[in-house]
This record gives sequence, C-alpha cells and structure tokens, in this order.
Amino acid sequence: MKILEGGLENVKGFSFSSIECGIRYTGRLDYSLLACDTMCNAAGLFTTNRIFAAPVKVCRERIDNPVKAILINATNANACTGSDGYNNTLRLTADIALWLGCEPENILMASTGIIGRQLPVEKMLESHARLRENLSQQNGHLLAKAIMTTDTVPKEAAVSFNCGDREFRIAGVAKGSGMIAPRMATLLSFIITDMPVARKDLDIIFRQAVKSTLNSITIDGDTSTNDTAIILSPVSDSYISNSESLASFEEALKAVLYRLAEMLVEDGEGATKSVRINVINAATDDDAALIARSVAQSLLVKTAIFGNDPNWGRIACAAGYSGAELKEEKLSIFIENRALLKNGVPEEVDYSALENILKQSNYTITIDAGLGDGEAIMLTTDISYDYVKINAQYST
Amino acid sequence: MKILEGGLENVKGFSFSSIECGIRYTGRLDYSLLACDTMCNAAGLFTTNRIFAAPVKVCRERIDNPVKAILINATNANACTGSDGYNNTLRLTADIALWLGCEPENILMASTGIIGRQLPVEKMLESHARLRENLSQQNGHLLAKAIMTTDTVPKEAAVSFNCGDREFRIAGVAKGSGMIAPRMATLLSFIITDMPVARKDLDIIFRQAVKSTLNSITIDGDTSTNDTAIILSPVSDSYISNSESLASFEEALKAVLYRLAEMLVEDGEGATKSVRINVINAATDDDAALIARSVAQSLLVKTAIFGNDPNWGRIACAAGYSGAELKEEKLSIFIENRALLKNGVPEEVDYSALENILKQSNYTITIDAGLGDGEAIMLTTDISYDYVKINAQYST
Repeated sequence: MKILEGGLENVKGFSFSSIECGIRYTGRLDYSLLACDTMCNAAGLFTTNRIFAAPVKVCRERIDNPVKAILINATNANACTGSDGYNNTLRLTADIALWLGCEPENILMASTGIIGRQLPVEKMLESHARLRENLSQQNGHLLAKAIMTTDTVPKEAAVSFNCGDREFRIAGVAKGSGMIAPRMATLLSFIITDMPVARKDLDIIFRQAVKSTLNSITIDGDTSTNDTAIILSPVSDSYISNSESLASFEEALKAVLYRLAEMLVEDGEGATKSVRINVINAATDDDAALIARSVAQSLLVKTAIFGNDPNWGRIACAAGYSGAELKEEKLSIFIENRALLKNGVPEEVDYSALENILKQSNYTITIDAGLGDGEAIMLTTDISYDYVKINAQYST
Repeated sequence: MKILEGGLENVKGFSFSSIECGIRYTGRLDYSLLACDTMCNAAGLFTTNRIFAAPVKVCRERIDNPVKAILINATNANACTGSDGYNNTLRLTADIALWLGCEPENILMASTGIIGRQLPVEKMLESHARLRENLSQQNGHLLAKAIMTTDTVPKEAAVSFNCGDREFRIAGVAKGSGMIAPRMATLLSFIITDMPVARKDLDIIFRQAVKSTLNSITIDGDTSTNDTAIILSPVSDSYISNSESLASFEEALKAVLYRLAEMLVEDGEGATKSVRINVINAATDDDAALIARSVAQSLLVKTAIFGNDPNWGRIACAAGYSGAELKEEKLSIFIENRALLKNGVPEEVDYSALENILKQSNYTITIDAGLGDGEAIMLTTDISYDYVKINAQYST
C-alpha cells in the first residue's frame, strides 16, 4: 500500500465540480457534484438520529440502486424541513439526473449546515448548468473544500495498493468538526475507488472499516441529523472477489478512513489536542467500547486534557459511570507508558515528566480494566474556550 | 408550608461544627460534623458510579443503622484510594464515635474533593476534639460553607409545615457545581427534620422526592464517585405515619430539595443561565426522561444557550439521538410560549422578541413529542468559557 498526495483526483473514473451557489453565504464554495463516468455500486452508513435530514431519507431509499452521482451542499442541512425539504431534494436530484442522462433514482444527495431552513431551491436549480460544466477529475481538492463547515482545513486522503499485478486506488474526503459523536457515520464522508467490488462485499467491508475509524471518534458527543458516509465502486461484469484481494482492499480502505478520522479529530472545533483513548482487558469488547466512549466524551476529562492536568481521577470516574463492568481493585490507568493507577492503587508519579507528555498535541491514555480481553479505541479532543466560542456564535 | 430563612439551624435536635483542619488547603473550613441529639433514622441515595469513594462504601454498610452523626470533609474525595482509604474512613468514624459515646456503626461519613489522594488522617484525628467542642445548633450555616468546593455560594434551604396542630421543620444543605449528572444523588446533600418518620416511610418518601429534584439536574453530565444524599429523622416510639401527614412531609421535603436543586444549577461551574427543559407528550415517562437528559446534556445546546442563539435545530437533533421514540412530523419545540417548530414544520419566528427571552438568566424550553402523555423536567445550565477555565485549572 502506498500513501498518495491529494485526494479524490487520484482515482480515475470520477469527476468533480464545486461552485459558489450562494446557498447561505456568498464568497464560498457551497455546492458540489461528484459524478461517476460509469454506474457505481454504493454502500452507505447514515445517522442513527431519529430526526434525520431529507437527503438522508433519499439516500436510504436509493442506496441499493446503481449510482451515477452524489450532489452535495454545505451551509444548509435540509433537516427539520418537513415534506417541502424532502420534495426539494427530489427536485434537485431529478434535475441533475436530466443533465447527466440518468434516472433520479441514480442520484444521491448529502447536505450539511444549519438545521430548520429550506434550501434556496430555485437558485440551486439555476446553478446546475455551471455544476455540470465544471466537472473535471482535477477538481477533487475543491470538493474537499466545498463541503467544509466550521472545518479549518480540507480533509482528503488517498492510497494505492496492489492485487496481484493490478494496481487500484481508494480516495476519500470528509468534513465535520462539531456535532461529532461515535454512533453512526458522524459527518459527511465520500469514498471512491476504481476497484470493482460487488455490492454485497462493498457493504460488508465498508461497515467493518467504518467501525474502527469514523465511528470511533468524538468531538462533542452530539450525533448529527445528517451523518452520511458513502463509498462508490464501479459496476462491472468481472468483480474482484477473491478473499486476498478483498483483504487488501479492506486494509487500504481502513487506512484512508483512519487518516480522515485523525484529521477530523485534529480539526475538532476549538481542539488543541487529539488524544487516543485505548481500553484493554475489559470484560467484553462492548464494555471496552462503553468505557472508551464515556472517557472520550467526559467534559471533565476533556477540560483536564485542555489544561494539561494529570487529573486521572476524572478518567477513573468516567470509566466508572460508563455502564461497563468495572472493579476498582483491578483498574489501572496509564498516560503513554506511565502508570498513574495500578490495580486500584495510586502510583507515585513524576509530575514534571508527565507534564511534558500532556503538553504534546497528541498522546494515548490507556485504561486497563483487568477483567477480560475486551478492547476498544476512541480518538477524542480537548474542549477549549474556542469550542465554546465557535458554538455560541455559529447560527446568529 | 412556610419558607424559613437560613438552613440547618432551623431544626431543633441537631448540632453542627465546621473547622479549618487544613486537609488540602489552609484558610478554609474543610471538616464538619453534623450530630444528632438523639439517634436518628437515616435514608440515603448514593452514586451509581462503579468507582465509588470509601465513605460511600461505609455509608452503604451503615445506612440501615440508627445514626448519631455524619462526618464530612471537603477538598479530598477519598476515592480511588484502595483499602487504605477505606481503613481511614473506619478510623475517623471510630474516633468520632468515641467522642460522641456511640458505636462506630452509628457514624456516617461523606467526602468531596480531588480523587486519588489519601486523607491526612493523623491531622484529622487531632482535630476531632475541636470538632466536638464547636458543636452548636447555630453553626448550621458554617456547615453549608464548609462543604463547598468550586461552589461560589453556600446552598441551604428550610421550611416549616403543620400536621394537625403540630409544626415540624425540614432543612437541608447541598454542595456541587461540577460533576453534576442526573443519575443518582449527584452531589453531597444533607437533610434533617424534627418530624419522627419510620425508616421505611422515610426511605420511600426520600427516594421519591429526590427523583424530581436532585436527580433532575445536570451541569456537565459527569456522575461523581462521591454522590451522597442523606436524610435524618429522629428515632421515636410514636412515629407520625398517617398518610395525610406523610403527604405534607413529602411536599415540604420536595420544596427543600427543589430549592437546593435550583441553587445548584444556578451556581453551576461557569454557568450564566439556568434553563428548564420541559418534555411533554412523549410516548412514555421514560422516553420523556431520555429526551430531557439528552437535550439538557448536549454541548451544542448548552453553548447555544450561552450564546443566546435560537438554534432550535440543535434541540431537535439532541432529542433525535436520545434513544426515545420520536417522529419528526409530530415534534414541536417552544422557547417559553413561542413556537419554533410545530409538528415538524419550522415556524415564522420574531427573532428580536425571542432574543429578549434568551438573554434572561432563566427560561423554559418545551419539547412536545406529540406521541403520548409522557412527561419529564430537567434543570440545566449553559457551558461558558468559565466552565472550561474552572475545569482546566482545578487540580494543578
């Protein structure tokens, strides 16, 4: 596997277009089209929120179809917009289908931005000619920029890998630096590959790969209404289906998704640090996941991380209320390789050496439950003044 | 029922003492004794955290016994301190029992402060003579001060009420402005009454009264290791047990607990606002509670409250991921009496009128699920820069 520079433009068979439509603001790219040269198989993961956006509803209805393109807008989530919002998604995708010469059912849509406002649908329809004219393989990077909200950097990743004597590529983009929670998808992310993978395999591998990557990050614990992660792979009459090649595909896909997940956490709203919460020896994997999430989401842990404060009691506390089985006399806590608590007994700690670790922009907290062999990892951020600032000022 | 000025000193039959022991800091009251003139029945609610402090363990072992006194220290939680921590609690309570002429099993203890440090037990033992010498009914207010951590004001409340021609009183203190979550007890709180109530009745009524008061508040969603709420009522050979009098008792108890809960939220770490989350017409009461907690704990909702931002989409979003049954087309959201979303359709909103409400220091957000008759209420705070500051700097 080789890591490539750039993002979507690395994969042949796709073209991209991003324009300034003026959906909510002027002077920024806010409307994009990701088009496939030939029909693609798609797999998708969507928010678990019971309040979900109109484009998520449309994607769920169409994800089993062959896909020709994904229409993506930023700055307006088209969520809590009732039947008008749903009909707007239908109109926009139907119009794009006309331009691209396919059925509306072959077009997916994703939206991100403020909840509860109707899309300026006429303005968007008028821009479709421009969207189509600008399609080009080279515009992949623009798409990564056009889907940003409070993100400060575009997030893209690409790799190449070999199956026998053939080289394939996978590339992806993601956005999201707030409303990031470890349940489903947790953001917008679009992944493309030139390796033809049958739909069933694509679906299984994508779900598996998202679990330990996009689904293992948290910034503020709020599960958005618009979470959408979609992968596209060309429809073919000769799918690659031997298990060795599919394993290589999964490995490469995980690498792309993990890098995107890392970038999302590093760019978390107001985040100054990205910390890996590593849970080992929990009673079960599910218990490990509960502990990892509880620690990763604890406001007191996150503010302690911001303050370079070795206040491991807050870590023990958050593990304790996670719902997972836990015994104080078996619990150990480490920052990097330094033990702070061992089998329930506080260790002598060299606080000045520890402070040097805590001042780093990333490090690992390990929680050893001492009960079984359950494991889980979460990536989390600190909570800083800027998180509060960004989110106190966003909509007005 | 009559609301009384002051706190614990309103109830006869108890005496209080608070001293500067120097447990972690000098120059502050940090060690207290709440003593009963005669043995009392006790009922208690304790943290649901699986990592719980040594004094919580001791209280659980002794709560069914007649109680002579509660020993309380601030600045050190005696949590994650292993068997040494447990033995320290046993030594301290045994020594107080000697001074008060009762068995160690008649003494309860509660601690609050930093996790993972051993108590300076010799220094504390040396101070016991002083603790006993200072006992006086008038020192109730000092106890409210001595149990404070990051609290900025002492929290005390008292009421009197009549049962037939007899007047009884209930008074209470509470502390806690961080690590406040709506699971169990969520703080330290001590309630005393001169009404003799049989242990079984006391336990049932206390649990019921805590549910809608101390257990319905959240500041940061972190369930502490030390949460302890205890009520004391004199052992008697003629308990008041008629249902009318017990109803009056419960009403008065709820009034005291609700006032303490309000004061806790108003003094939440860094809080500039206290907001009531009122859920109505959920499918069940349990669903209503899930929605109320999810909205009350959402960082995005809490930062929007801080920013006076009518971003009701974040409220819908947090309701949506609560786990409760929810249908977008049935969902309505109000701030005070102004509808923002009605049956899934955004309302025209007069934002300048709304801003005047949002700038108030307290208001009510109502979420109408439109599905049944389930109801729940939570008190919550905003999250401000100061919350981050307080918690980034607390332990070091």
